[in-house]
Amino acid sequence: MAILVVGSVAFDSIETPSGTAERCLAGAATYFSLAASYFTDVRVIAVVGEDFTANEEEVLKRRGVDTRGIEHVAGKSFFWRGSYMQNLNEAQTKETQLNVFETFSPTIPAEYADSEFLFLANIDPVLQEKVRQQMPRVRMVCGDTMNYWINDHRANLEKVLHGLDCLLINDGEAKLLAQDANLVRAAKKILASGPKALVVKHGEYGATAFFSDRLFPGEAKSVSLPFRAPALPLSEVVDPTGAGDCFAGGFFGYLASQKEITPSTFKQAMFYGGVMGSFAVERFCTERLQSLTREEIDQRFALFRELSHLD
Amino acid sequence: MAILVVGSVAFDSIETPSGTAERCLAGAATYFSLAASYFTDVRVIAVVGEDFTANEEEVLKRRGVDTRGIEHVAGKSFFWRGSYMQNLNEAQTKETQLNVFETFSPTIPAEYADSEFLFLANIDPVLQEKVRQQMPRVRMVCGDTMNYWINDHRANLEKVLHGLDCLLINDGEAKLLAQDANLVRAAKKILASGPKALVVKHGEYGATAFFSDRLFPGEAKSVSLPFRAPALPLSEVVDPTGAGDCFAGGFFGYLASQKEITPSTFKQAMFYGGVMGSFAVERFCTERLQSLTREEIDQRFALFRELSHLD
Repeated sequence: MAILVVGSVAFDSIETPSGTAERCLAGAATYFSLAASYFTDVRVIAVVGEDFTANEEEVLKRRGVDTRGIEHVAGKSFFWRGSYMQNLNEAQTKETQLNVFETFSPTIPAEYADSEFLFLANIDPVLQEKVRQQMPRVRMVCGDTMNYWINDHRANLEKVLHGLDCLLINDGEAKLLAQDANLVRAAKKILASGPKALVVKHGEYGATAFFSDRLFPGEAKSVSLPFRAPALPLSEVVDPTGAGDCFAGGFFGYLASQKEITPSTFKQAMFYGGVMGSFAVERFCTERLQSLTREEIDQRFALFRELSHLD
Repeated sequence: MAILVVGSVAFDSIETPSGTAERCLAGAATYFSLAASYFTDVRVIAVVGEDFTANEEEVLKRRGVDTRGIEHVAGKSFFWRGSYMQNLNEAQTKETQLNVFETFSPTIPAEYADSEFLFLANIDPVLQEKVRQQMPRVRMVCGDTMNYWINDHRANLEKVLHGLDCLLINDGEAKLLAQDANLVRAAKKILASGPKALVVKHGEYGATAFFSDRLFPGEAKSVSLPFRAPALPLSEVVDPTGAGDCFAGGFFGYLASQKEITPSTFKQAMFYGGVMGSFAVERFCTERLQSLTREEIDQRFALFRELSHLD
């Protein structure tokens, strides 16, 4: 089943203890699309400037990603410059240029209208909601957000949360959103505000999913417990950028490829999320995501199982 | 099989967002002994002052812990006052009184000489080594340490590390010990310095075990991967003090209760460690550890499995 994703397609300049990358293809929608493309059909809605050439588009097309929803306008693409020199777990933003994103108003091509899955990557919640409204009949909607929207655009974000099946954010964002320093209490508050499931990403410690009874009606017993998926201990994290978007891509891509969304497929999806995140950080930018095979992905899935299972 | 543990038996005064506790029975050896007592016989070596009365001793005895190695001397027991008001994950030390611990020189009663397992809780590595030397023929030795000994007593600590089968410390301690900010690289360095296994505790994110080939000779393939055990997401952490010692008690207590130490029993032990740590933080001081049943423990073990396993 096809996933429609709306989010940023951008250029990043990144500095980490492993080296630097200048103006490489990046952005949440790019990372998400590449990761999800190993599991299902992906369609992108985004806006780019004249610096996004046929070469960049080819990176997505080679993975079978449908780029007809990428709007090309005059000017430059979204640009972000960040450093992980002080802390590999937290980017220091050195420069952000919204550029063509400043006036972006997403419209959905007719060819995308039958998408059954929708991912609202981390952008202005007003844009997320605009896309959500245009896709009223999708089977499942997942979304992401970040501190900036939680702090300064809470009312708009709350409208988005109401329409989500699953929200994927990190620990700090979950605690900030719920204004509670305890993750379990924070998760309960967030689930009460809209999403039927909450996936909290812990970086090198994996991720935890929390469920409301509304996600799997009739299966409340089996999903009242949270679920914890591991991350792969890595001896080098070359570039952590996009790991969360690749988690979301692996997670949602796997779910969209399954006949049914059940507690069991949801758990497997959590593992595939961790797997794609672990590949993402092995190289700068989207490099590692461009040339994987499904066999490599499934081998690593088996590794995640061995790493965390008693037998 | 009996475990011999050497460490502190102490009184703590603790302040957390959930309340306060004044001069309650605590200390690493106390937490460890109570947690391990649900799995195997435990013998304690420690020193206490006149404030440690028959009432305190009874807490250990009721759990079958052999207290003949607790030396009673004039003066006051070790005392620690700490606060978790600013951060539940890191104690702020308000006061430390070594008291009778200042002149402690552990000697092992003849009745303890046949102990097959030895746990060196977090005390001066000189004392840890003294005990280790008196028990040359134990089957397995595990130990703990902390920043203070790593920073200021490294040479003494390195002697202890040489004689350990397994070191149990937290993330920050592992990175400090290895002087490497990457946990996988830090683990490799630590394993090269002596211990055959390293268990790194991540607090609310669980724990990871790293193995050297020397731990299970001939089984290198199955243990070249680390192993990750979950922690239980809790809506309230009443008092985090002693969670790490209880992890060690559950972990080592379970191992000592098994016929053989194999990759499989080691993994189960990691889960039992998390289980005992999760009980510890539910009440102030050692309260929750005093009245558990093995049935409650095994029910929670099943919960840990459900929380982390795909099927």
